[in-house]
Amino acid sequence: MDVMARIELALESAIKGTEVSGTPPRLAEAMRYSVFPGGHRLRPRLCVAVARACGDDAPELTDAAAASIELLHCASLVHDDLPCFDDASIRRSKPSVHKAFGEPLAVLAGDGLIVLAFDLLARAAAQRPDRLIPLMGVVSRSVGVPSGIIAGQAWECEPEADLSEYHRAKTGALFAGATMAGAAAAGADPTPWRFLGERLGEAYQVADDLRDVAADPEEIGKPVGRDAALGRSSAVRELGIAGSLKRLDELAESAIDSIPACPGQAELQALIRMESRRFLPKDLARAAA
Amino acid sequence: MDVMARIELALESAIKGTEVSGTPPRLAEAMRYSVFPGGHRLRPRLCVAVARACGDDAPELTDAAAASIELLHCASLVHDDLPCFDDASIRRSKPSVHKAFGEPLAVLAGDGLIVLAFDLLARAAAQRPDRLIPLMGVVSRSVGVPSGIIAGQAWECEPEADLSEYHRAKTGALFAGATMAGAAAAGADPTPWRFLGERLGEAYQVADDLRDVAADPEEIGKPVGRDAALGRSSAVRELGIAGSLKRLDELAESAIDSIPACPGQAELQALIRMESRRFLPKDLARAAA
Repeated sequence: MDVMARIELALESAIKGTEVSGTPPRLAEAMRYSVFPGGHRLRPRLCVAVARACGDDAPELTDAAAASIELLHCASLVHDDLPCFDDASIRRSKPSVHKAFGEPLAVLAGDGLIVLAFDLLARAAAQRPDRLIPLMGVVSRSVGVPSGIIAGQAWECEPEADLSEYHRAKTGALFAGATMAGAAAAGADPTPWRFLGERLGEAYQVADDLRDVAADPEEIGKPVGRDAALGRSSAVRELGIAGSLKRLDELAESAIDSIPACPGQAELQALIRMESRRFLPKDLARAAA
Repeated sequence: MDVMARIELALESAIKGTEVSGTPPRLAEAMRYSVFPGGHRLRPRLCVAVARACGDDAPELTDAAAASIELLHCASLVHDDLPCFDDASIRRSKPSVHKAFGEPLAVLAGDGLIVLAFDLLARAAAQRPDRLIPLMGVVSRSVGVPSGIIAGQAWECEPEADLSEYHRAKTGALFAGATMAGAAAAGADPTPWRFLGERLGEAYQVADDLRDVAADPEEIGKPVGRDAALGRSSAVRELGIAGSLKRLDELAESAIDSIPACPGQAELQALIRMESRRFLPKDLARAAA
């Protein structure tokens, strides 16, 4: 099955499991709204790609790992959009969850998605119980403290933030979680896969900074120019557009070079090379091609 | 070791694990503040008591289970106190987390505690990997959707709430999680332990309603009279004080009668009988003795 279809199916099945008698209907609706329709599903696709490169011998566990990474990503978007953080009213071209359902349900939908992510892993691990401990370790470290996305967001609440820690945790951690979870789901040692995820996370951050200055808001589904408006650090402010495009290439190449030896190494290298320009704004991608 | 000391030690070790280099310092501080000093630690004590009754042959896993239940309880208090829910400024006789640290850190501290709870289970399960799946299933069902405490809180956001579902999820679910997790940690089937937790949760709710009308605010560390002020349903409003005390006795007795056959059945029955009046306000407890 096509990777995207696999992921949508795994997410649909996870969310469907919450839409049962006994669930408060608006909570169920807010959780579905947080997850569908999705964005590019970058992180879960990366998770499945790594699992495939490692043999993918427990596909149900791979699907659960990929879906759990995406559920945690969606949860972080819902909470990050809250009025007390970014106060974002638009996300993925529609009203953000707290705009559509109110703040209480946005807090609870995020909480519910976090729990669902772990529940999903435990259920799917019936197929390979021996893989649950490493898989959970990887997933929880990519979201929790000290260095997951929750910690990354919390750097914004510090009087003095270590910017490299901030970026690594805020964007890199869930990408590293995705590559490592893919490996763990397929029974491989996750550790050598961390660097690939971290580098791709950094590349994604640079691409995101480029989109923030150069994209059409309709194309990316949220307002542009937010970094400058919020006085945030940005690769483009530091390196300029040309410098940022060069940095993006370097990051993608070092990511590709880091891919550990595995049955599907060559295919994975080709895939990442192909996709590394895909998330640039269309104009820039054409210019850089 | 004394049960209370065991629990405090397990919680201290869990929180200590987040206070490492790389954690945003204020987030670490907010997480510790959410957990210490604690309340009566009712749920984790119940968890350990059930595990002991079932033999407690993997004490590290029992401690992790008990601590994870308490971390999830603390997370729910932090989020429930937020301005968009109860807007509570006092909790456990000190400013609530969002009053002390601001709303963003309160949201993130709650998120971080949820993730930490699952991380803790996975780490401790190295001792008995075969028990992780049932344990996680029990714990995630007690907090997630359709019927955990997150769902319970979400009933407050529905135009029409099923009050019995609401109470079962809001208070009963984590008590049921505590008894079932204690059994699962000790390698027993958790299912027969659900009823005990649910009944004790209901009893706790009745006791809480009694405290809300009859306690000294200093004694319970939060304002009294909130139920009436917020127009909430309450056992006391329905049954009066004498009726509520009678209901409390019936619930405790049916809880005690439900304790499954296990090595420590008699001790557990005695313990629960002894404790069932302990959380009444002092004056009522004296009157009812």
